[in-house]
Amino acid sequence: MEPRSGWTYRAAGVDLEAGERAKAGLKELVARTRDRYTLSELGGFGGLYALGGRWRDPVLVASADGVGTKLKVAFVSGRHHTVGRDLVNHCVNDILVQGATPLFFLDYLAVGRLEEGVVEAVVGGVVEGCLENGCALLGGETAQMPDFYAPGEYDLAGFIVGVVEREEMLDGSRVRPGDRLVGLASSGLHTNGYTLARKIVFEAMGLGPWDPFPGLGMPVADLLLTVHKSYLASLGPLIREGRIHALAHITGGGIEGNLPRSLGPGTTARLIRSSWEVPPLFRRLQAEGGVEEEEMFRVFNMGVGMIAIVDAGEAETVVGRLRACGEQAWILGEVVEGGEGVVWV
Amino acid sequence: MEPRSGWTYRAAGVDLEAGERAKAGLKELVARTRDRYTLSELGGFGGLYALGGRWRDPVLVASADGVGTKLKVAFVSGRHHTVGRDLVNHCVNDILVQGATPLFFLDYLAVGRLEEGVVEAVVGGVVEGCLENGCALLGGETAQMPDFYAPGEYDLAGFIVGVVEREEMLDGSRVRPGDRLVGLASSGLHTNGYTLARKIVFEAMGLGPWDPFPGLGMPVADLLLTVHKSYLASLGPLIREGRIHALAHITGGGIEGNLPRSLGPGTTARLIRSSWEVPPLFRRLQAEGGVEEEEMFRVFNMGVGMIAIVDAGEAETVVGRLRACGEQAWILGEVVEGGEGVVWV
Repeated sequence: MEPRSGWTYRAAGVDLEAGERAKAGLKELVARTRDRYTLSELGGFGGLYALGGRWRDPVLVASADGVGTKLKVAFVSGRHHTVGRDLVNHCVNDILVQGATPLFFLDYLAVGRLEEGVVEAVVGGVVEGCLENGCALLGGETAQMPDFYAPGEYDLAGFIVGVVEREEMLDGSRVRPGDRLVGLASSGLHTNGYTLARKIVFEAMGLGPWDPFPGLGMPVADLLLTVHKSYLASLGPLIREGRIHALAHITGGGIEGNLPRSLGPGTTARLIRSSWEVPPLFRRLQAEGGVEEEEMFRVFNMGVGMIAIVDAGEAETVVGRLRACGEQAWILGEVVEGGEGVVWV
Repeated sequence: MEPRSGWTYRAAGVDLEAGERAKAGLKELVARTRDRYTLSELGGFGGLYALGGRWRDPVLVASADGVGTKLKVAFVSGRHHTVGRDLVNHCVNDILVQGATPLFFLDYLAVGRLEEGVVEAVVGGVVEGCLENGCALLGGETAQMPDFYAPGEYDLAGFIVGVVEREEMLDGSRVRPGDRLVGLASSGLHTNGYTLARKIVFEAMGLGPWDPFPGLGMPVADLLLTVHKSYLASLGPLIREGRIHALAHITGGGIEGNLPRSLGPGTTARLIRSSWEVPPLFRRLQAEGGVEEEEMFRVFNMGVGMIAIVDAGEAETVVGRLRACGEQAWILGEVVEGGEGVVWV
């Protein structure tokens, strides 16, 4: 609406005081993630992180990601404290693929109108994710963008920086024919395929966020907001011991869209379709949406969140070690010479 | 709409093939920003950047930012190739404040439906910005989020990492009473205050994007999309010579919201209001919107894009050097002992 006297920023939809209050509230929250290398507090122009002389030949590994339309599930359920963990864990997994240990994280949160409880819940989730993965939340931006986002809606993106010694970098060059592929179970949909999953659940099945999901005995919101898991704690030690030849994080594009990115040229991944059972959530989505099998595997992780490529002689040890860390892990297939991409047997 | 047979991701609004095509097109574009330290191509899980042994005691400086509702001006004018430069330059200036040289950049682009020309124009602008500032575009995310963004609309965020030697870090500790404040002119609104500026221009003044802006002889779109300038080329050499005690990038919150972040405790910035003339664009916005003077200074940069704090004996040299680089620069005031924040004289 047009103001009675002159225009103000607030009348136009941006509340600088609310922005300052939110920032003050976040400062304390974010301070929980500071470590001895964090030289700045929230509120500087840039965040400062001392790399120091701890690394011989450091390679920085960085990744940017969002949560996608999983956010819409947070909106309809009013549950905003888990999407930040999804985001951090997704980014942590992405740089873990190159063997990197996370150093710090920054978030970008764009809102229509600033609702302080929502901002605190979202950033609180980012803080939890950072604590869980031992990385500092070094900074971020909370943008007030009226006309962009509906009331109660927002977008959330994250950026991570980690480090790996150059000689320990995982870049596909260690992969050899005969290597085994070890599957690690996902915790659910992770952060992919939500545009399709939401259509099926909320439109085709006509469910609400608090309805029980048929056959799974859990509310829809709980099931769809299950946090994208981080594999840092279970895979990190194995990487440092040199037991991992390569990793593939199964995100958008599914197994076939992601696994080839981690194989060297001239090798094919031979996967055993019967080595695991696709979790019931995926099968129910497929049945209710009438989605073809191939499409399911392109859009969703189908129960496989990460694939580790290891020496054949190490495979059983790796599976055992991962299970001891609480992972569901199994031999999913092997690397064969020639060709490219993925074949199913 | 419900598909006739089964659901596909594409029917739900996400086109994985278009995503892959866009990525292939961007790969070549982004390759232009590669330097000898960039170890990865676009398409890996994380981007790889070799820090190597070039630094004695490196401090990484990182910042995240968006373009705000300046994007809406890009939407209404259909001109999408400059907002990426705004974003990179904004981020470069933010870490320059701590004395950092940019190393690499990542972008997050969220679209409703993927329009390949638009994505290429936006990322092309990011590439231009990276080339202009000598930093690598190490990675990014293009998210397809139907139901989030209207057709032709998108959000864009960026993330930068730079480096500074710990002993050369600018952290406010060098600021002394008697230091002079040097103003550097902005190129326009930069990336702040657009929610208010758009209300005034498009609603109160009733202008369209291609109408001439009264009294300024330029189309509205040209004026409002003027690129946020980078001060790296002009200030970088002065920072490396140790001539700069502190910097303040004048963004959201204006001079009073930003300058105090760069002063040490127990000092006040005394600014001479008559030392520069507020550019006509700001005065016209103020008059047409009936915006109070104080509000204008809180929302807009009012013609001051960056403030450098330098030794009194160096001030004239610094101003001369900046002018030789093409900057409009002038003595804006001085640092006085005691108190805090900003006073105007």
